[in-house]
Amino acid sequence: MEIVEFTPEREQYAWTFGGVAPIRTVQPGTVLKLWTEDAFSGRLQSASDKPSEKLDMREVNPQTGPFFVDGAEPGDTLALHFVDLEPARDWAASATIPFFGGLTATDRTAMLHEPLPELTWIYQLDREKQVVVFEALRGDFRVDLPVEPMLGTVGVAPAGREVRTSLVPDMFGGNMDTPEMKAGATCYLGVNVPGALFSVGDGHYRQGEGEACGTAVEGAMNVTLIVELIKGGAPVWPRIEQDENYVVVASSRPLEDAWRSSQHGMIGWLGELYGLDPLDAYQLLTQISQAPLANVVDANYSAVTKIAKRLLPTGEAYGGMHRYLREQAAKL
Amino acid sequence: MEIVEFTPEREQYAWTFGGVAPIRTVQPGTVLKLWTEDAFSGRLQSASDKPSEKLDMREVNPQTGPFFVDGAEPGDTLALHFVDLEPARDWAASATIPFFGGLTATDRTAMLHEPLPELTWIYQLDREKQVVVFEALRGDFRVDLPVEPMLGTVGVAPAGREVRTSLVPDMFGGNMDTPEMKAGATCYLGVNVPGALFSVGDGHYRQGEGEACGTAVEGAMNVTLIVELIKGGAPVWPRIEQDENYVVVASSRPLEDAWRSSQHGMIGWLGELYGLDPLDAYQLLTQISQAPLANVVDANYSAVTKIAKRLLPTGEAYGGMHRYLREQAAKL
Amino acid sequence: MEIVEFTPEREQYAWTFGGVAPIRTVQPGTVLKLWTEDAFSGRLQSASDKPSEKLDMREVNPQTGPFFVDGAEPGDTLALHFVDLEPARDWAASATIPFFGGLTATDRTAMLHEPLPELTWIYQLDREKQVVVFEALRGDFRVDLPVEPMLGTVGVAPAGREVRTSLVPDMFGGNMDTPEMKAGATCYLGVNVPGALFSVGDGHYRQGEGEACGTAVEGAMNVTLIVELIKGGAPVWPRIEQDENYVVVASSRPLEDAWRSSQHGMIGWLGELYGLDPLDAYQLLTQISQAPLANVVDANYSAVTKIAKRLLPTGEAYGGMHRYLREQAAKL
Amino acid sequence: MEIVEFTPEREQYAWTFGGVAPIRTVQPGTVLKLWTEDAFSGRLQSASDKPSEKLDMREVNPQTGPFFVDGAEPGDTLALHFVDLEPARDWAASATIPFFGGLTATDRTAMLHEPLPELTWIYQLDREKQVVVFEALRGDFRVDLPVEPMLGTVGVAPAGREVRTSLVPDMFGGNMDTPEMKAGATCYLGVNVPGALFSVGDGHYRQGEGEACGTAVEGAMNVTLIVELIKGGAPVWPRIEQDENYVVVASSRPLEDAWRSSQHGMIGWLGELYGLDPLDAYQLLTQISQAPLANVVDANYSAVTKIAKRLLPTGEAYGGMHRYLREQAAKL
Repeated sequence: MEIVEFTPEREQYAWTFGGVAPIRTVQPGTVLKLWTEDAFSGRLQSASDKPSEKLDMREVNPQTGPFFVDGAEPGDTLALHFVDLEPARDWAASATIPFFGGLTATDRTAMLHEPLPELTWIYQLDREKQVVVFEALRGDFRVDLPVEPMLGTVGVAPAGREVRTSLVPDMFGGNMDTPEMKAGATCYLGVNVPGALFSVGDGHYRQGEGEACGTAVEGAMNVTLIVELIKGGAPVWPRIEQDENYVVVASSRPLEDAWRSSQHGMIGWLGELYGLDPLDAYQLLTQISQAPLANVVDANYSAVTKIAKRLLPTGEAYGGMHRYLREQAAKL
Repeated sequence: MEIVEFTPEREQYAWTFGGVAPIRTVQPGTVLKLWTEDAFSGRLQSASDKPSEKLDMREVNPQTGPFFVDGAEPGDTLALHFVDLEPARDWAASATIPFFGGLTATDRTAMLHEPLPELTWIYQLDREKQVVVFEALRGDFRVDLPVEPMLGTVGVAPAGREVRTSLVPDMFGGNMDTPEMKAGATCYLGVNVPGALFSVGDGHYRQGEGEACGTAVEGAMNVTLIVELIKGGAPVWPRIEQDENYVVVASSRPLEDAWRSSQHGMIGWLGELYGLDPLDAYQLLTQISQAPLANVVDANYSAVTKIAKRLLPTGEAYGGMHRYLREQAAKL
Repeated sequence: MEIVEFTPEREQYAWTFGGVAPIRTVQPGTVLKLWTEDAFSGRLQSASDKPSEKLDMREVNPQTGPFFVDGAEPGDTLALHFVDLEPARDWAASATIPFFGGLTATDRTAMLHEPLPELTWIYQLDREKQVVVFEALRGDFRVDLPVEPMLGTVGVAPAGREVRTSLVPDMFGGNMDTPEMKAGATCYLGVNVPGALFSVGDGHYRQGEGEACGTAVEGAMNVTLIVELIKGGAPVWPRIEQDENYVVVASSRPLEDAWRSSQHGMIGWLGELYGLDPLDAYQLLTQISQAPLANVVDANYSAVTKIAKRLLPTGEAYGGMHRYLREQAAKL
Repeated sequence: MEIVEFTPEREQYAWTFGGVAPIRTVQPGTVLKLWTEDAFSGRLQSASDKPSEKLDMREVNPQTGPFFVDGAEPGDTLALHFVDLEPARDWAASATIPFFGGLTATDRTAMLHEPLPELTWIYQLDREKQVVVFEALRGDFRVDLPVEPMLGTVGVAPAGREVRTSLVPDMFGGNMDTPEMKAGATCYLGVNVPGALFSVGDGHYRQGEGEACGTAVEGAMNVTLIVELIKGGAPVWPRIEQDENYVVVASSRPLEDAWRSSQHGMIGWLGELYGLDPLDAYQLLTQISQAPLANVVDANYSAVTKIAKRLLPTGEAYGGMHRYLREQAAKL
């Protein structure tokens, strides 16, 4: 396997999906060892750093990429297998940003309230215990939380000539913010433009489902992934395969539409896997679906539909691509 | 412990929360052994039974109850501990009902489509293997699914003089359809009227999160529960405590409002448990929340916020009520 | 025409649709001269009256009624023709109520903000100029606004054994808060229970579309209406006929569902009036619909679909009922 | 006044806001006489033309532009005054497109229904009577409808480096589909990039509010407009000024968020015009707002907040820009 290492300089960050020239061309089968900056572009470093003073909202969620995948054509399926996600710093940050988040008025859910207080929490990483430490700002509550690294943002260039900020999740992936995007997972994305032009970023040392305040435990991440290409078969919405689960992530508003789309996508996948009629798949899904929310805070909300493979007969998605990639990963 | 057994006659079913005279008065501490009919009132018995022909939509979700809890006053907290949920039949049913469900036009999400085909799936229960059997109607797909019994509908009489059908979930509980309502769980409900007037029903032999088609594996259920009363402390939204988790269930539309309310409710609970400031609780919840949807099909949608106790310092909700009820249950 | 006059005593107010014994039985064709209290139950009388101190939220939106209409059966259509709406006081009130309204966090759109300031505006009525006077509380802005009296709340007992507070709009009508409910209009409501059990209340001396802050220019009202009964023909959602317009009001969440239902209802009405195929009616409606919002603040949001009769061939709704009622009204 | 005439060649159409090189540079004060193709790119010409066969969904809503406005900088306000909208053909078209529209499942409101029938309606324009003729496809219903020309799509390049399809409405304007965008109106748009890069298109010979089926009476249009530039003052959401009204158009999902944003925008405008405190403006708006929906069918829904100037003291928006442009227009 070819291994490509890449750490972007600050001026090389991508801020959008689409609209950026590729930083590298890679062949299917390549292993990428990437460094990604945190969602705050590294600008929140202490509890006294106020988001409104330190952040430039045009420069959040910096992406590492985009990569041009040789041979990828519209209608193809890009497979990104995450071999390893390793915190690249010993600390991470989270914050309440004015008029951003799930339990606050926003620029869309416009209200007449003053913004909530701006606060920044710094989490220290204890690599030995594999925990990050939550410390209350108002009181002496303190608790260790297991590190569970994930990537908030994984996507390709959008369809329809569009260019979208890296804050948005949609059919092209993007800022889905789902804890399912973790080491051991394979993400399948429909290709919209030649070369796919994928990028990754927004590492979270951990995140709850829904990402209530809008920012997870945000930290720079070392990302090892394998790129593969499947001709044809582009799914409408991003899919994730793990050893134990099939996952579909859809992003829209209101939240029920995101959920509907993710369920619809899974009904389609069940049809591909088992030849199930849509109504039978609808019925089966009704009884076995998990539905852990991803985020209810971004420009689109992201809902997850997830099925445990143990509840299903043996199936083979994309010709066994996930198993193959797990085997490749084991060789590294 | 006093043990009260009750199996309603068909004419004793309650179809609403509120508006029905109590069927029994019970003392706090009482064990209830109840039988509940399925959501279809037992009318769907074979794959040839069409919902539109067999069902009377004014008589679905029959409730067993209501029970008048001696001493319960508005502002108090009713605790219902589910000791055991045992399928009362060897089969269960699910169906697509015209213009009802998550991936169909409905009376609210009004569209010009014809209804989806009406289909009924009968699930056989294998008590030895503890599975129900899904059999596709269109093809020969067949799979065993573990029985995971739960109650779709648990509630008290609403506030504000209202009477609501047993199809609706809201602050009073009702048709929340969450898989969290299972044996071993304690449900806390705010009391709105003297005696609380709670009832239960809508047994599911299993259900996925979201309940996509609108009906789970619906079956009659034998329910063993213990009733307790906590003076004061009424939560805004129903809470559930399990050995491993704290859970808040909120129901509204659009789905993001249900999620917001359940997160808001959990922030309040974290404040009660640990004296956390709301913004600190918001931050902590952002990193540890689970958010498994309950239903996206009923008159209100129900969203769940769930926290694993193992992530938190030891806490004691309602003076240790759940632990006490677990001990009581162990004596039965 | 029989004329019945009725002014409720305070203890006779109804607070719900359904669940209340009729205050009078009336024959179809009866003229009712009613007095209705304002939505605040008359408790906000000066700019220093704080809603949180003066209001009991269980006693807002008092209704005058319910009236049992002799001969009304489920499936019938109740026609209420508003002959005259006359302010019954020389002042009216509006207010920002904590966590109630369109541009604030609410009990459903739960957030972590403090409530907006509680403010009360008193409007003086100038009967000669037929205006109410808006005076800014913070500054010296002042403007006369034309009086345009309407009723916020008109409804019948709900279906499905339900009892709903007078704050809720739904298929039974209720707190729709649409400026279309004015003198000269005929409201058609589907009958759900014997006698229909209708009531009216919540007079507004004027209101904008959407009712942003949640309370209009709220004032006691003298209401003259004629009751008529049409056998059968119950519409799903409330309809209003004016000399110039056909109107359908639907109430749901999210707001697009309210809009969808009102459009769907109008497509049905166009089918009744002109025998139009649903897809042709959908197309025609697309080009001629008005869609002035009613309220985006109540427990359900209300959307209006409205068509100017001048754009359509002559039609006759309900056998010319509106024209007949206009003629009857002219005789008073 | 300099007058620039421009009719794009087919290969000159723009399909996005942003991401396209300017077709012309114009000075503030310039009069533009433009031709715009219809939303179907002229491909639906008879009732037998099926959208799924004739349309390329990547090539709908062709834009005439973009124009680089000399001197326009981010934060400035672009004023576009529509002097005249004149149908450029003697016919127009409307259609039901599979899974597109307000009363159908869509790619976002994903369901399991088959698509609604694909139908195309051709409207003949009678210039003398100034009507278009609706003819039912299923039956012999036929009615003349007044021509009320408007532009569905008016916008500038988006902020945040984005490029959006011409099907989307958002803060940059775009496919707002409001009947308020008619001759005599001045549209104010915040400038996001040097030169503003505005374009126009999507002429409608008439359209109802909400645009239920997703397509209005779509026709090629001759557009005469005057471009002006105001330094600074960029509004968050597009504003429209007419002789009689102030209008704010906001676009989001769910629809209540679009409405909230448009109301919030108007409260800001009232503050600019009269120095009103936000809470006083909220109160005043509650009593005088009109809220005619624009579209509930596009990628974002668009809601309108509108105030009749006659209800307000004399005000002057943007230093009297609208009046000035009306005077300029009168000289043409």
